[in-house]
Amino acid sequence: MIKLSDYSTLPPEDLDKGDAKKLTNKYAEEIGELHTKMAAHGEHSLLMILQGMDASGKDGAVRDVFKDCLPTVMTAQSFKKPTEEEFAHDFLWRCHKLAPRKGRTQIFIRSHYEDVLIQRVHNWIDDDRVAMRMEAINAWEKLLVADNNTTILKFYLHLSYDQQEIELQQRIDEKDKHYKHNDGDWEERKHWDKYMECFEDVFNKCGDIPWHIIPVDKRWYRSYLIAKIVKETMESWELDYPPLVRDE
Amino acid sequence: MIKLSDYSTLPPEDLDKGDAKKLTNKYAEEIGELHTKMAAHGEHSLLMILQGMDASGKDGAVRDVFKDCLPTVMTAQSFKKPTEEEFAHDFLWRCHKLAPRKGRTQIFIRSHYEDVLIQRVHNWIDDDRVAMRMEAINAWEKLLVADNNTTILKFYLHLSYDQQEIELQQRIDEKDKHYKHNDGDWEERKHWDKYMECFEDVFNKCGDIPWHIIPVDKRWYRSYLIAKIVKETMESWELDYPPLVRDE
Repeated sequence: MIKLSDYSTLPPEDLDKGDAKKLTNKYAEEIGELHTKMAAHGEHSLLMILQGMDASGKDGAVRDVFKDCLPTVMTAQSFKKPTEEEFAHDFLWRCHKLAPRKGRTQIFIRSHYEDVLIQRVHNWIDDDRVAMRMEAINAWEKLLVADNNTTILKFYLHLSYDQQEIELQQRIDEKDKHYKHNDGDWEERKHWDKYMECFEDVFNKCGDIPWHIIPVDKRWYRSYLIAKIVKETMESWELDYPPLVRDE
Repeated sequence: MIKLSDYSTLPPEDLDKGDAKKLTNKYAEEIGELHTKMAAHGEHSLLMILQGMDASGKDGAVRDVFKDCLPTVMTAQSFKKPTEEEFAHDFLWRCHKLAPRKGRTQIFIRSHYEDVLIQRVHNWIDDDRVAMRMEAINAWEKLLVADNNTTILKFYLHLSYDQQEIELQQRIDEKDKHYKHNDGDWEERKHWDKYMECFEDVFNKCGDIPWHIIPVDKRWYRSYLIAKIVKETMESWELDYPPLVRDE
């Protein structure tokens, strides 16, 4: 059973910030090359799911980790409030459309998990609906793995309550962060404990494909750790550049 | 356990062809009106799945039953061999994209079931893949019902081996049917028994939402029976025209 209070939001003390940043850049380059190989083979696909509270640094993680990937091979979608058309469908409809084809990476910034998080925190759906959706999520993720050779990487960006306040306040105080400010984030913050409960339930009930809990109070460690996991995952496929093929 | 040999491919003897045709037309009109009401409410959606051997009359059924429905409310998709893009995704991807939004009917002429039928008959997939896909189908259909208030109607168009030969031969002999001829249909016909086995397995393992087995050797009975089931299903929703709403 995962309890978030068992997990630190800070980096381990023995890791030097400068070293970590250098490694992150190196990993990012390698991830770029691994993506070229993935595309060349067209056998694997990668779905990367990023969840976390407001200001937990989801967008920044994508920027740092995938900066050397071509947008023809790696695409990212930020899921917002469903559109009228999306609401008129089951909750997985908009996500399934964007599932990665073989040879590609798709990043979900927020995801289908919002439908058992924000909707549950605000009691827009009842417990039966939550249980049904969690079952549907497990079945759907299993399908992507079994029928399309998709690797699913799930990340929870673990931010402390105090650090969230600092991050949100910076969006008010610093001119180049104003665009990120949203009064609604301060409202959601009031439901912190309920969010933590719902996240824990997700980790425990939708954990067949396990969650990586990433300490994000220090952004440099967040990017380092995510890059490391992505790199190691893609390396495990053991893809080389394909051999030359010529017409007879 | 469903065994197709227990089911006749012929109409019951006590039904008059002329009476049935009149009723089919009446039902089709009612189905048109029921669709208008469904669209006006935007609460229900209908997914209609038509499976059957070549020349079992799937397209003709759609023509007869839905002729009074607007194409803004009712759409049909005929699934062929997957495209390169579809093949690069899980087998449900192309179907889920087309799942009906609330207030609409979507007809699948062939469907996700092809992925556990033709692919299985030709041994393009192994038994494990078949079992996994059947589980995925059950989970996906359950999701549409539970999360989007979708009613799923599944029809197997039950054609006899002898009648298929007559129908396929007409496509060769009659000028206005030449466009339907395909040499490949005669090849598939050689696998008749294996198809029947695979269909039966589908009915038994993907039968939480039950299959309607429609005798189709006589086309007038096919259309009559499908129209009757569609009409009765939509009537069971007890939708009236919504009341007048005016701005204050």
